[in-house]
Amino acid sequence: MATQDDPPAAEVGEMSIQEGDDTDVVTPWEVGSSSMKGVDYHKLTKKFGSSSIDQELIDRFERITGKPAHQLLKRGTFFSHRDLHSILTLHEQKKPFYLYTGRGPSSEAMHLGHLIPFIFTKWLQDTFDVPLIIQLTDDEKFLWKDLSLEEANRLAVQNSKDIIACGFSKENTFIFSDLDYMGQSPAFYRTVCRIQKCVTFNQVKGIFGFGDSDCIGKIAFPAIQAATSFSAGFPQIFNGKTNIPCLIPCAIDQDPYFRMTRDVAPRLGYQKPALIHSTFIPSLQGANTKMSGSDPNSSIYLTDTPKQVKTKINKYAYSGGGATVEEHKEKGGNCDVDIAYQYLTFFLEDDERLEEIRRTYTSGELLTGYLKKELIEILHKILADHQERRKNITDDIVREYMTPRKLKYDY
Amino acid sequence: MATQDDPPAAEVGEMSIQEGDDTDVVTPWEVGSSSMKGVDYHKLTKKFGSSSIDQELIDRFERITGKPAHQLLKRGTFFSHRDLHSILTLHEQKKPFYLYTGRGPSSEAMHLGHLIPFIFTKWLQDTFDVPLIIQLTDDEKFLWKDLSLEEANRLAVQNSKDIIACGFSKENTFIFSDLDYMGQSPAFYRTVCRIQKCVTFNQVKGIFGFGDSDCIGKIAFPAIQAATSFSAGFPQIFNGKTNIPCLIPCAIDQDPYFRMTRDVAPRLGYQKPALIHSTFIPSLQGANTKMSGSDPNSSIYLTDTPKQVKTKINKYAYSGGGATVEEHKEKGGNCDVDIAYQYLTFFLEDDERLEEIRRTYTSGELLTGYLKKELIEILHKILADHQERRKNITDDIVREYMTPRKLKYDY
Repeated sequence: MATQDDPPAAEVGEMSIQEGDDTDVVTPWEVGSSSMKGVDYHKLTKKFGSSSIDQELIDRFERITGKPAHQLLKRGTFFSHRDLHSILTLHEQKKPFYLYTGRGPSSEAMHLGHLIPFIFTKWLQDTFDVPLIIQLTDDEKFLWKDLSLEEANRLAVQNSKDIIACGFSKENTFIFSDLDYMGQSPAFYRTVCRIQKCVTFNQVKGIFGFGDSDCIGKIAFPAIQAATSFSAGFPQIFNGKTNIPCLIPCAIDQDPYFRMTRDVAPRLGYQKPALIHSTFIPSLQGANTKMSGSDPNSSIYLTDTPKQVKTKINKYAYSGGGATVEEHKEKGGNCDVDIAYQYLTFFLEDDERLEEIRRTYTSGELLTGYLKKELIEILHKILADHQERRKNITDDIVREYMTPRKLKYDY
Repeated sequence: MATQDDPPAAEVGEMSIQEGDDTDVVTPWEVGSSSMKGVDYHKLTKKFGSSSIDQELIDRFERITGKPAHQLLKRGTFFSHRDLHSILTLHEQKKPFYLYTGRGPSSEAMHLGHLIPFIFTKWLQDTFDVPLIIQLTDDEKFLWKDLSLEEANRLAVQNSKDIIACGFSKENTFIFSDLDYMGQSPAFYRTVCRIQKCVTFNQVKGIFGFGDSDCIGKIAFPAIQAATSFSAGFPQIFNGKTNIPCLIPCAIDQDPYFRMTRDVAPRLGYQKPALIHSTFIPSLQGANTKMSGSDPNSSIYLTDTPKQVKTKINKYAYSGGGATVEEHKEKGGNCDVDIAYQYLTFFLEDDERLEEIRRTYTSGELLTGYLKKELIEILHKILADHQERRKNITDDIVREYMTPRKLKYDY
C-alpha cells in the first residue's frame, strides 16, 4: 500500500493551537476550545499533518464503492484522513483490508457521542464488506482512572452490548478487551513487544506528554493501542497473515497513537494503518466542549427515556436562536453555534430537509422550539430502536463476539 | 507472613560500591569488581539492606527441615536473604508457600554458573516439597539484546531442557516463557497491570538506571519479572488463591527487581516475596568477573566434552598457587583467589575432603595440578550425568512442563 509521509510523531507532540483569542486543546485525555464554534479542525489537520477530506475524495469514494457517501462523511463529521486513497485503491483492486476502531470503557452509560464512530464504522463495514476489530482498552482505563481491573473489565462487557446493538454482525466482527485478549493470544503480546522495542520514553513524552512521575503502565500502554493496527496480532482472523492493511475510523484526539504507530510500522516490516478522523459531538452546552460521560446534563445517554431526551434538548441544548420570538424573527438563528441544528447534521439523513431547516432557521422563519422538536423526534426513534436491540444482548452473546476465531473471510 | 522492612527501593538504586581502591558493580546487567577476591558481598548486603545468612539461621534451617544444609548454603554461596525466617516458620506450621526462580534465555549454551541456582532450587524443593515456578524472560532478552522474538523464544525452550535435566519433576514444577504465558493467562497480565500502576518512571530510573532514551518495553519490563512473585498470576496452580507466599532463590544481581516487588506488594494486598541470594560463580579468569555465556574461554559449558573441561581448567582457571613447584612448596597456595578451589566449594560435597584440600593447598603440600585434577574429575561426573539426562528431553517434554496446569498440591 503506498502511504504518505507523516511529520515525525514527536514533533507534533504539542497539541494546543492558539489562534487570536481562541485556544484549542486536543489530546487523547482532553478536548476543548475557548471558542463557541468549537475546535478549529482545519488548523488541527495542518498541525497534525493529516489530509483534509475534500469533495474530490468523497466523489472517488462514491465512484469506487458505488454508494452515496454517508451523511457523517459528506457533511464533514469525518473531515480528515491519512492514506484513505490507498484503501480505496485496495477496494478497487479487490484486495483485503480490515477496519479497527475502539473504545475506552470508563463508564456504564454510553452517550450519543460514543455512537457516532460506531454508526460510521458500521456503514464502512457494510460498504466494503471487510472484517472489523473493536478494541476495548480496559487496561488503559484501569491505569488512568480510579477503577479496579474487575470494574474496568465489567464496563468493557457492558459497553460491548451497546456496540453490538449498533448492528455489527458476529460473522465479520471481533470485539476484544485488552485485559482478556492479552491473556488469550501470544501473537498479540508479541506484537506489543515488537512495538515497545521501537519506541523510547523520549518519544512517548513528546507525543503524549508523559512525565517521570507517570506510572510505567501508562508509559507502555500506547504500544497496546498501536498493536491492533497490525494483523500480526490476530492470527485466527487473518489465518496468520501478518500484513493485511488496516483502516482506522476514530475521533481526531486518538490520532497521536496512530502517528506513533505509523512511525514504527516500516521498521517492523508492517503496513502503516490508514485513518479517517471525526470531529467530536459537542456537549449540549455548546460546541466548545465534547459530550462527557461524567456530566449527565452534557449528554444524551443511550438509556435516556423519551421524556429525559425531550427535557435535556429543550432545557440544555445551547441555542443559536434569538432571545425572544420577535428578536429571532428579526435577526434569524445562528446554525454555527446551535447545538440542536448540529445534532441534526449528524442524525437527519434527508439532505433536502436539513437544508430547508438551515435556510429557514437562519432567516428566522423557523423557531428554536420547532427545530428542537424535529431533533427530539429523530432522537426518540434512534434511541427506541437502539434500546430495543440492546435489551436482547446478553453476556453470552458478548462472549461469542469476544471469542478469538475465524471470521467469514478467507486469507 | 511477618516481613522485615526494606529501605525504599529507589534509595538503593546506586549500586556501585567503592571501598579503598576496589570498586564493585552489581546490577541485573553488569557484575564486576576491580578486586581479584571478587565482589565484597558483606558490603553488598549492607548496601542492599538485606540480611546476612548466619550460623544461627543455618542451624534453624537444619532443625526445622531435619536435613543437613546444602553445601551452597553452609559454605556461603547463598549468603544473604530477606524474610527467610518467615518461610521457615511457614514450613514449621505446615502452611503453603512456593518457590520462584528464573533465567533470561540469551544464549543456547548454558554454563556451570547458570546451573548453581537450579541445583540449589532443586534441593530447596526436595527439602520443602512445594511447587516451583521457573520464569524464562524471553521478552526481556528480546528487548535488551539484538535477538528476534522467535530466537529468544526458541532459546527459552532449549534452556528449559537444561533446567529440566537438573531433575525437576513435572508434577510439582511449572516452567514458562513470558512470550507464551502472557498470551495464555489473563490472570498474569492482570497482575502485571496492577504492578505497572504502582511503579513510576522515576522509581525504575532510580532502581534500574533507565533513561529517557530507553525503549518503553524495558521501562515496563520489571513488572513482568515482579509478577511471578504473586500467586495471583497462576490461578491453575494455586486454585485461584491470590496470597500464597513466595520464596525466590536468585543471584544477588536480581535483587533490585524484588526490592521493587516488595515495595509494591502491600499496596496490592499481596505478600512480600522472601529471598535467598547467591554470589556469582566466578569466571575461569578470576573471581572479579562472573562466568559469561558469551566468552567461551571464561566458562565451562554444560555441553563441553571431558577433554574441553580438562583443557579449560588446566589452561584458563586462575591459580592461587606458586609460579613454580619450589615457590608453591615454600609459600603455599592462596585459596581466596584460586578458581579451581572455589569451584570445589560449589561442587565437592564432602566437607572433610574440602577442608583437607584447603589445608594442604594453603600449606603448599598439595600442588595446583592435583587440585585441578580433583575438580576436573568432579566436573566430568556432573557434566556426564547432566548430558545423559539432557539428551532424552524433547520439545514435547518441555511443552508438558510449560502447560499451565494444576500441580500435585491442593489449595
